[in-house]
Amino acid sequence: MIEAGIIGGTGYTGLELIRLLLMHPKVKISVVTSRRYKGKKVSDVNPHLSPFIELDYEDVDTKAIADRSDIVFAAVPHGSAMKYVPELMERGTRVIDLSADYRLKREEYERVYKREHTDREERDAVYGLTELHPEVADAALVANPGCYPTGAILAVAPLVKEVSPYRACRVVGQSPTIVKQVVFDSKSGISGGGVEPSEVSHFPNLAENIIPYEVTTHRHVAEMRRELPVPISFTPHVIPSIRGILTTAHVFLNEGELKTYEELDAIYRQFYQSKRFIRLMKGMPSLSSVRGTNFCDIRVEIEKESDRIVVISTIDNLVKGGSGQAIQNMNLMLGLDEGEGLMFPGLAP
Amino acid sequence: MIEAGIIGGTGYTGLELIRLLLMHPKVKISVVTSRRYKGKKVSDVNPHLSPFIELDYEDVDTKAIADRSDIVFAAVPHGSAMKYVPELMERGTRVIDLSADYRLKREEYERVYKREHTDREERDAVYGLTELHPEVADAALVANPGCYPTGAILAVAPLVKEVSPYRACRVVGQSPTIVKQVVFDSKSGISGGGVEPSEVSHFPNLAENIIPYEVTTHRHVAEMRRELPVPISFTPHVIPSIRGILTTAHVFLNEGELKTYEELDAIYRQFYQSKRFIRLMKGMPSLSSVRGTNFCDIRVEIEKESDRIVVISTIDNLVKGGSGQAIQNMNLMLGLDEGEGLMFPGLAP
Amino acid sequence: MIEAGIIGGTGYTGLELIRLLLMHPKVKISVVTSRRYKGKKVSDVNPHLSPFIELDYEDVDTKAIADRSDIVFAAVPHGSAMKYVPELMERGTRVIDLSADYRLKREEYERVYKREHTDREERDAVYGLTELHPEVADAALVANPGCYPTGAILAVAPLVKEVSPYRACRVVGQSPTIVKQVVFDSKSGISGGGVEPSEVSHFPNLAENIIPYEVTTHRHVAEMRRELPVPISFTPHVIPSIRGILTTAHVFLNEGELKTYEELDAIYRQFYQSKRFIRLMKGMPSLSSVRGTNFCDIRVEIEKESDRIVVISTIDNLVKGGSGQAIQNMNLMLGLDEGEGLMFPGLAP
Amino acid sequence: MIEAGIIGGTGYTGLELIRLLLMHPKVKISVVTSRRYKGKKVSDVNPHLSPFIELDYEDVDTKAIADRSDIVFAAVPHGSAMKYVPELMERGTRVIDLSADYRLKREEYERVYKREHTDREERDAVYGLTELHPEVADAALVANPGCYPTGAILAVAPLVKEVSPYRACRVVGQSPTIVKQVVFDSKSGISGGGVEPSEVSHFPNLAENIIPYEVTTHRHVAEMRRELPVPISFTPHVIPSIRGILTTAHVFLNEGELKTYEELDAIYRQFYQSKRFIRLMKGMPSLSSVRGTNFCDIRVEIEKESDRIVVISTIDNLVKGGSGQAIQNMNLMLGLDEGEGLMFPGLAP
Repeated sequence: MIEAGIIGGTGYTGLELIRLLLMHPKVKISVVTSRRYKGKKVSDVNPHLSPFIELDYEDVDTKAIADRSDIVFAAVPHGSAMKYVPELMERGTRVIDLSADYRLKREEYERVYKREHTDREERDAVYGLTELHPEVADAALVANPGCYPTGAILAVAPLVKEVSPYRACRVVGQSPTIVKQVVFDSKSGISGGGVEPSEVSHFPNLAENIIPYEVTTHRHVAEMRRELPVPISFTPHVIPSIRGILTTAHVFLNEGELKTYEELDAIYRQFYQSKRFIRLMKGMPSLSSVRGTNFCDIRVEIEKESDRIVVISTIDNLVKGGSGQAIQNMNLMLGLDEGEGLMFPGLAP
Repeated sequence: MIEAGIIGGTGYTGLELIRLLLMHPKVKISVVTSRRYKGKKVSDVNPHLSPFIELDYEDVDTKAIADRSDIVFAAVPHGSAMKYVPELMERGTRVIDLSADYRLKREEYERVYKREHTDREERDAVYGLTELHPEVADAALVANPGCYPTGAILAVAPLVKEVSPYRACRVVGQSPTIVKQVVFDSKSGISGGGVEPSEVSHFPNLAENIIPYEVTTHRHVAEMRRELPVPISFTPHVIPSIRGILTTAHVFLNEGELKTYEELDAIYRQFYQSKRFIRLMKGMPSLSSVRGTNFCDIRVEIEKESDRIVVISTIDNLVKGGSGQAIQNMNLMLGLDEGEGLMFPGLAP
Repeated sequence: MIEAGIIGGTGYTGLELIRLLLMHPKVKISVVTSRRYKGKKVSDVNPHLSPFIELDYEDVDTKAIADRSDIVFAAVPHGSAMKYVPELMERGTRVIDLSADYRLKREEYERVYKREHTDREERDAVYGLTELHPEVADAALVANPGCYPTGAILAVAPLVKEVSPYRACRVVGQSPTIVKQVVFDSKSGISGGGVEPSEVSHFPNLAENIIPYEVTTHRHVAEMRRELPVPISFTPHVIPSIRGILTTAHVFLNEGELKTYEELDAIYRQFYQSKRFIRLMKGMPSLSSVRGTNFCDIRVEIEKESDRIVVISTIDNLVKGGSGQAIQNMNLMLGLDEGEGLMFPGLAP
Repeated sequence: MIEAGIIGGTGYTGLELIRLLLMHPKVKISVVTSRRYKGKKVSDVNPHLSPFIELDYEDVDTKAIADRSDIVFAAVPHGSAMKYVPELMERGTRVIDLSADYRLKREEYERVYKREHTDREERDAVYGLTELHPEVADAALVANPGCYPTGAILAVAPLVKEVSPYRACRVVGQSPTIVKQVVFDSKSGISGGGVEPSEVSHFPNLAENIIPYEVTTHRHVAEMRRELPVPISFTPHVIPSIRGILTTAHVFLNEGELKTYEELDAIYRQFYQSKRFIRLMKGMPSLSSVRGTNFCDIRVEIEKESDRIVVISTIDNLVKGGSGQAIQNMNLMLGLDEGEGLMFPGLAP
């Protein structure tokens, strides 16, 4: 069995890693850390994990974790991961970082996240949007994407040539891109906001409501723009749901570029032909179909007499938008089947 | 215009007092206090009140409040009201206390609330369950009932003779009571838990859930037992709704006491005949019918071949279960029509 | 008292008309129709209206309604209103039609709604978006706007010169418009879908979900385009809430037209300066602040280093997006104060 | 691989059987029926099942199903199962019936369900509450319990001697039972009401509400009374959640029978000691901990100075309260490990 360590096992991302790894046939969780709960049984703090995990929470000891783990997931907040990653990597442990700390180049990171990046190495992390970056297989460090970028980028990647500096993907069409402008209007369940109660997560504030926030300033747009070299606008909202992100991508095409639905459909089918976690939908994607799963459901629609197409994508923000994609990356890194432990239907209804 | 002061104007109870008093044709709000927001416009902190209130929040100055108010509502937590009430009363100001501080006799209060009662006077507050205590009209101090007791007591009061030590109500039947045992199983919206985010009010914890709490120990049972001298059990739950309390009263009758539906219905109709905020329902009471209103909807059903009857009551916990009933009491205290400012339909759906 | 008739009193729009008119100090409801419930007490079918309305539902008899009403609201589905409006108008009764039947010119209506318009007269209805069309005051027939258009048009009207063919509003700026492209991404509570259960309104389908629909084909875009002569895209979604529409307007400006926040704010304040139902917000608009009210809350934000501004608007779809605006129009038509019966705070939380 | 057939594959129970069986390592679904969707791909009608099931829906052909299946699940409504069961059994196929058709003796069934039982055989079905009826292992026909009875019976079974006519369980204590009276007050997610939209499942009716129904007349009480020979009252409510049943059991004990918490805890631990799907909780059971799983979480609490104890149980109504328990029964019938395919953590949050 492969031994996987989890740094940060009390947030939703960490708990979802545990839930999913417990169903993984080839991985055993070696250690789970929590400062707050160290010494307590993981399943006492989180009764939904009983009786599946026998471990106690431990304090973070990077050396001990490295010794006991073939691979380590960092599921701590932005700014904390960069404290642990250097030592883990020096000890030769491969790391999947679910925070934002290694998603952007240093300068861009410091500008966007408004904090110093304290890791003095330039680590060349691979951006772990698995469908677009198969080179994660060889990575020592994977920067797992943000939840919003996952749903947004997957929705329009097939329309944009030379998807990223990595040029990792098959490209489509002759022109650099047929896309003139993209507006991502995203709607997320509140679990993306984390396990700590807040004004926004307070039930009387969120129920019967929908809350736009950081409507022109959300940091995730930096990841989107890096992967998709076209003009991008992004506005997130929180909806009164626990899980899931639905992204409505309003895509304006360059003049004369408008495709028929058949052409468009073909572009998407070709682009995602071997990608088992992308489901191209005839009907409307739904948060309920992807609930608890690693799937990203996508549907494209052309507006008549217009230069707009609308792409709808849905993911579970904690799975494909977080811990599931991290495990998908882990599978590739370890030479396992990409879907190992992740192929099961969603919890609908 | 009557001048009403509100001590504690940032909690849900205080805000609901403001909302309702703003619609009251004969009352003007003279002062609203908040330590946290003093100096800020009430309507800047609470945009739903714009442009209806011009006041700024003020710090609590009991003397100034008494000077400027014909009546004062104390909408502060248990333990705080007792700090302000004595001085207000000494200045001759009538007070409606929405906290628990004056609902029980001193010893019982100290036993149930596990704190010292610092008001050295025995103030003889009237328990402001308006339908059962018309003597609020003459009260200098009204102890406004808890939200759960309001819905629970109203549901079974017609079945219990000599409703309370106050003997304020018409009694029914010859025997002291036909009731052997009552189980109140109550389901409340989360706004009863207050404006501060908490584990229970955290959306991912409450949505798709129902949370029982203090299942054998909730303090509100003391009010119920005082008003209803029959064996009472009480278990509260929080449901994923903002407002409302639905109480399911499982009432076991003494042998031979079982009435026909017609008799039972007659008892309820007679008991509540002139009570305009009690609606006896043919159909099932609903939180949506009472949303935003001072109504208590009640329905009685007899179980065949059993000694159980089931009474369902619904209220809006912030209105009839709090601020609305406080205003109903105020109306009586001031010689106004009981329904002044409170007679409007619920926000359904 | 003014006598108002309601054709169609069982749908959410009709019920909301009743709820609001019952609080109106100068209007009395003269008749409410329902084929299904004729002969039944309105308050038996809708217990939240008890004891406020004594009327029974009646069958539709246009002549009788005209005789007994100074003004009539048609709250029936598209295609039905056109059956009743001609006879009402011939009898000299002023009508406010809440359906789509008179919102568009005949040809456009027939193209968009894919049905014949059976009223052979060209009635010259005034489009009842009250803030933009004060000429409703003199109208014999008002076409009350759709719920989505109300929130969307109000959000960007101040940015678009010559708001409509009616030229009813003050205009701002010298250029015809500073707007290059608008994307309205709207999120609506499910009450907009009506009182009849459906797949979309089925709780297990909608809870924990958000449902895009008619993402490039919703008929309401026709109203938006008529009022706002700029390129408009519109995509609606249903959120798991009962009431409310939040519209996120992504507005792209022509080059060199970008204003500072101060300029933008000034444009909005000037445009809406005497409009009491428009609240320009410092904080984020919320469905809870407008719940049950006729307000439209609006907030503008400029994206840095971009040509996009984002305007967020919120309304209660059944009030400002329907019955409340209808009553606002009625007030103007009858020479009453515009806010009569409509000035009260929202039901928050 | 074992071949399992499903009659009725479009309701929530049938779909949940498919979801769970697709994760079962030793079972293959051989056939799924639907009159409405025959000929359509199961995964086209239910996209959350894509790409896991390749089958098309078929019409019901009892003979063909029997030929192709080692075991058959009947997931059709009450009254329909009895049409298919006889022929399946005559062909020697073992059947698990998820409807109510075989849960009660014929006379009781006809009285409770108010319909004729058309199966003229007395089939001696085993009541499939697995923890209490290990004799399902040898059954030819299992009557899978109702969702409410599962949560209710499991909550108090340890307190009641001679649990059922089957006397299948270890009994506790000397007296026949220490229980005087039980009130089951149950709160269910709406998925228990089925896949068809209805008044109760209409989002505006259920959201922000809780709906009691059949408060003294629900048919499931018959199952409870058969299994638990003590006085039982039962009142169900629908809460605004998709999945889950929380049952609050108010248990009144005979005088002098009250146990300490330690004794009570010991009774429960002994009774359920080898039952892996029963989790006895230190904290409060939650619908979120059992979401999607076959667990029943139980917590007992003693009221001080009272003869009441309160037992809280939670299940996922579609899993332990339906399809999961059916598979648990199937495992025993087929000699598999009881937990095969069912041991995974709940989808929390």
